[in-house]
Amino acid sequence: KYNMEKENLSVVLHSQGDLRLEQRPIPEPGPNEVLLQMHSVGICGSDVHFWQNGRIGDYVVKKPMVLGHEASGRVVKVGSAVKNLKEGDRVAVEPGVPREIDEFFKSGKYNLSPTIFFCATPPDDGNLCRFYKHSANFCYKLPDNVTYEEGALIEPLSVAIHACRRAGVTLGSSVLICGAGPIGLVCLLVAKAMGASQVVITDLSADRLVMAKELGADFPLTVKREDGPEEMAKRVEGLLGAQPHITIECTGVESSVQAAIYATRPGGVVVLVGLGAAMTTVPLLNAALREVDIRGVFRYCNTPVCCTYCNRDNQSPGHTINI
Amino acid sequence: KYNMEKENLSVVLHSQGDLRLEQRPIPEPGPNEVLLQMHSVGICGSDVHFWQNGRIGDYVVKKPMVLGHEASGRVVKVGSAVKNLKEGDRVAVEPGVPREIDEFFKSGKYNLSPTIFFCATPPDDGNLCRFYKHSANFCYKLPDNVTYEEGALIEPLSVAIHACRRAGVTLGSSVLICGAGPIGLVCLLVAKAMGASQVVITDLSADRLVMAKELGADFPLTVKREDGPEEMAKRVEGLLGAQPHITIECTGVESSVQAAIYATRPGGVVVLVGLGAAMTTVPLLNAALREVDIRGVFRYCNTPVCCTYCNRDNQSPGHTINI
Amino acid sequence: KYNMEKENLSVVLHSQGDLRLEQRPIPEPGPNEVLLQMHSVGICGSDVHFWQNGRIGDYVVKKPMVLGHEASGRVVKVGSAVKNLKEGDRVAVEPGVPREIDEFFKSGKYNLSPTIFFCATPPDDGNLCRFYKHSANFCYKLPDNVTYEEGALIEPLSVAIHACRRAGVTLGSSVLICGAGPIGLVCLLVAKAMGASQVVITDLSADRLVMAKELGADFPLTVKREDGPEEMAKRVEGLLGAQPHITIECTGVESSVQAAIYATRPGGVVVLVGLGAAMTTVPLLNAALREVDIRGVFRYCNTPVCCTYCNRDNQSPGHTINI
Amino acid sequence: KYNMEKENLSVVLHSQGDLRLEQRPIPEPGPNEVLLQMHSVGICGSDVHFWQNGRIGDYVVKKPMVLGHEASGRVVKVGSAVKNLKEGDRVAVEPGVPREIDEFFKSGKYNLSPTIFFCATPPDDGNLCRFYKHSANFCYKLPDNVTYEEGALIEPLSVAIHACRRAGVTLGSSVLICGAGPIGLVCLLVAKAMGASQVVITDLSADRLVMAKELGADFPLTVKREDGPEEMAKRVEGLLGAQPHITIECTGVESSVQAAIYATRPGGVVVLVGLGAAMTTVPLLNAALREVDIRGVFRYCNTPVCCTYCNRDNQSPGHTINI
Repeated sequence: KYNMEKENLSVVLHSQGDLRLEQRPIPEPGPNEVLLQMHSVGICGSDVHFWQNGRIGDYVVKKPMVLGHEASGRVVKVGSAVKNLKEGDRVAVEPGVPREIDEFFKSGKYNLSPTIFFCATPPDDGNLCRFYKHSANFCYKLPDNVTYEEGALIEPLSVAIHACRRAGVTLGSSVLICGAGPIGLVCLLVAKAMGASQVVITDLSADRLVMAKELGADFPLTVKREDGPEEMAKRVEGLLGAQPHITIECTGVESSVQAAIYATRPGGVVVLVGLGAAMTTVPLLNAALREVDIRGVFRYCNTPVCCTYCNRDNQSPGHTINI
Repeated sequence: KYNMEKENLSVVLHSQGDLRLEQRPIPEPGPNEVLLQMHSVGICGSDVHFWQNGRIGDYVVKKPMVLGHEASGRVVKVGSAVKNLKEGDRVAVEPGVPREIDEFFKSGKYNLSPTIFFCATPPDDGNLCRFYKHSANFCYKLPDNVTYEEGALIEPLSVAIHACRRAGVTLGSSVLICGAGPIGLVCLLVAKAMGASQVVITDLSADRLVMAKELGADFPLTVKREDGPEEMAKRVEGLLGAQPHITIECTGVESSVQAAIYATRPGGVVVLVGLGAAMTTVPLLNAALREVDIRGVFRYCNTPVCCTYCNRDNQSPGHTINI
Repeated sequence: KYNMEKENLSVVLHSQGDLRLEQRPIPEPGPNEVLLQMHSVGICGSDVHFWQNGRIGDYVVKKPMVLGHEASGRVVKVGSAVKNLKEGDRVAVEPGVPREIDEFFKSGKYNLSPTIFFCATPPDDGNLCRFYKHSANFCYKLPDNVTYEEGALIEPLSVAIHACRRAGVTLGSSVLICGAGPIGLVCLLVAKAMGASQVVITDLSADRLVMAKELGADFPLTVKREDGPEEMAKRVEGLLGAQPHITIECTGVESSVQAAIYATRPGGVVVLVGLGAAMTTVPLLNAALREVDIRGVFRYCNTPVCCTYCNRDNQSPGHTINI
Repeated sequence: KYNMEKENLSVVLHSQGDLRLEQRPIPEPGPNEVLLQMHSVGICGSDVHFWQNGRIGDYVVKKPMVLGHEASGRVVKVGSAVKNLKEGDRVAVEPGVPREIDEFFKSGKYNLSPTIFFCATPPDDGNLCRFYKHSANFCYKLPDNVTYEEGALIEPLSVAIHACRRAGVTLGSSVLICGAGPIGLVCLLVAKAMGASQVVITDLSADRLVMAKELGADFPLTVKREDGPEEMAKRVEGLLGAQPHITIECTGVESSVQAAIYATRPGGVVVLVGLGAAMTTVPLLNAALREVDIRGVFRYCNTPVCCTYCNRDNQSPGHTINI
């Protein structure tokens, strides 16, 4: 319908506040790449943040960058060495592609590779555009019954999969999730899918908790800014009848991180998903003496192959699985 | 309704084929024990086997033994040091209670303690009787909405929980279960509850597979005695579009163990739940070169605290949880 | 040489600063206990701290308490049910003995059991006395070539074993140890014994680092109070040519905890052994984004059975092993 | 000294028994490759086996293949994209280089990637030649005090590192090694370096055990072909005073695999390093009921970065470490 030769309408952030819709050349895929005609691209909080602030921490927009990294599309051209995909395949895009075969990649933690390419993290271009090329190994074929819209949502879901894995959620885990925003909610879905028996989820907004309840939260808990962290922890213990094995902190707020530590059972795990200030004051002694581990998450790795929500399997090229 | 002083009707196996219903004294609980009025006690295959054969492997019935180990009951008397239970509590019974604080118990694998007490494994008496005393630490309070009958079924469920944990089933695992008998079916339920994305389950009987399908199996697969193990493995791969990450072998049949090895993906796990002959001929080279781990299960440990089916929590005495 | 009936000279702390040498009755061992004639008992920093301050955090000396928990002695009386020890056996004492079979004990983390008995932690009496009874399961027979003095030092060594295990030290690990006091030095010994390829160890005192160098430290590093945490981290990276996989923080000082986080490689581990203030300000964001895990240690568990320094093996009663 | 343009003397196996020394063209390194002037290349048992039999299992020599995969050399040319190496660097070669970024590679198990390149496994050429090009990411710079000869031996050492890791050898492990050939001996070295407290090593040849003793074996044990597996297991238990936690089977002989299973402690691990017949008859029931895990090893992965014997560190290009 449009001229593939010329038209590649792209959402480009030139600098803080300077967002432009402009035509860019349609890229040519390399031997291990595919060219995608993008279908659905979610707008992440980070996209908005780059637009409004021009930076996130040390990542600064210094030259024009295409936004977008929650994406799905259709393969329209296939590199010469690509085996797992063919023209017409509908795929979800994993936006992080390691550039070097370093120790992190070799040992299965490619998300930690310092030179990784990642869509819409400066200076790497994202895929909020018409045509986009990507490593074929990081595109995952969608089953017929998964829509493009759902495909684009696999990216935020991956954050939750990685977080729940790092937390060690398993059958019978009791879990506290701090914050019922989008990431808190996907963590809830994934924790339940991994067998968590009971989930407490907190938020300042009672409205958000209505949604959490619908999605399977056992104990929605409305909190107030003035609640003390230790008091919060007590309330959680009261609801569950015991401290949770695992706490997934999705707010980044200092008092919530403190509550997360106090609330967690000895020998348990606090996972930090929400990002806060550079320096945080926390009851580290309390965590240490009760052997409550504190673990962060940076994006994700190896999540697409094990997503129950779409049952896709990168290892079986050409095989479409029904759910 | 009966005289608690005298009546403790018990199902006692005297020797192979010699099963008697007889009165036994009502036991007195020790300081850390509770006396239970039994409500529901399942008849396990092993009970039947002891009755018909007088032995299972090295376990020989040499003196009269009460049968039964899948049990639930009501607390009617509480030892002086017991804190977690009180009269009237409805409980499920974990039939294995370690007798010594040995290296296995200390390191969290009390099921492997060679001196463990286990109901209805000679010479230890089981609980297919009216009144039975048991370590309070190995009785788990049932929530109000879990019936005694369901409570008794937690024991076989524990076998599946332990097997799926040993297998490492998690979100997105693809699983092959060999055998759709009672244990195969509980493994199916638990694997799904732990997030398995796809489960193939096999059986000689198509009828059994109907039930498996109802319980959530993605691919029921009827097999024949004459099917070759490698051919079987191919059919499983065909159904899933890839080899399963995990195989849970519940038949103990040699050809099925062989198929389990051939079928499993490199780097995967075969768990042996079914018990076969003392010596088995297997493609160990194939397993070794593909790093397919072979793991057995012996009963279970630490399963009751994390059962999603009843949400019971031993750590919160007096707290009843609703599902 | 002294009257066993009456004499049990004990070092008793009555309250802050009030330490007395007094006679106490010789205890009678229970069925699972042994009576020990104590030989060597180390004076731990905590003993001194209780004496001088009357408390450590929430642990307050409210009634007279015998000090001492780094101990070895000789079995002089054996409880009726004891199988693993006999009169005359020389043993090291594990001072923590769980009182309840709770979820922590069942799952192999008995050090986290909230009701655990622990020598010289109020209100539990220690073993800085002539005669002391203890659970036979937590006494470990010493090989002939290990002295009583060495036996008493197994307790502080256990702290290091637990810390290095929690850290995941293994063949080829590069390790930073903050602080070259007694615990830092045993961590050094244990890390090397576990296969660490390179160890940087820091201290304010150059003298302490001389000892560290003798004990195998690859890179002793003198630090100054005014050194910035990020600068410290850079120096460590400079010495190793890469960030260490693991940091074992043994000072509890806030700036050192900060340096520990900055210094550790992405995907690595910081273990907190030193105890600091209740609240600590740390670069949690830096740790989270680089997936540097923060883990505390509380005493230890399951360390005696795997100590290479004495090769003792609790599982083989009566067997004495030569090193 | 020789004409780099033409001379690349190579040891080429044309077919079973047909080994030729011939000139081959000097290859041109790709962008991510280096050209090496080979210095030391070990002759592995597999090289000899290919020469004498023309095949190992399914790997058949169908066209001329250069032998050799235990190798070290000097970088003489550097691909355009290479960052971690420069001309003149002395390196050890990891002979396996994954060709595809598949699920195995992504998750840190690239040794299991079915399409991996591996030196001198048909049809892939080895490096027993004058000049050889290799992926720069799989060449590891040698410290100045490690000779080329030692560098070439890192390959067989890697087999032992991978085996001991898969076994979970750690501080205090007691280990049985079946077979004191070259691989048994490197397993001994690595197990000790990882903290194994006691190692029993067996062999038919008393001479080999003399070397094992010198290398640190605690209990050399001469065995005879006619020894029964269960009797063997008893003797090992007698030497150690308890069953070993871990058995590393390096013979591939059926009776030795059987002994390995019987000998290992409940909850322990048998690692299969030696390769035997396609089908093996083993006491699988014994292993299963005692939860003795059986794990194979296929080559190795991620071993070079953590070798204590040369302290090399791939992550710090240009940094030479002294041992």
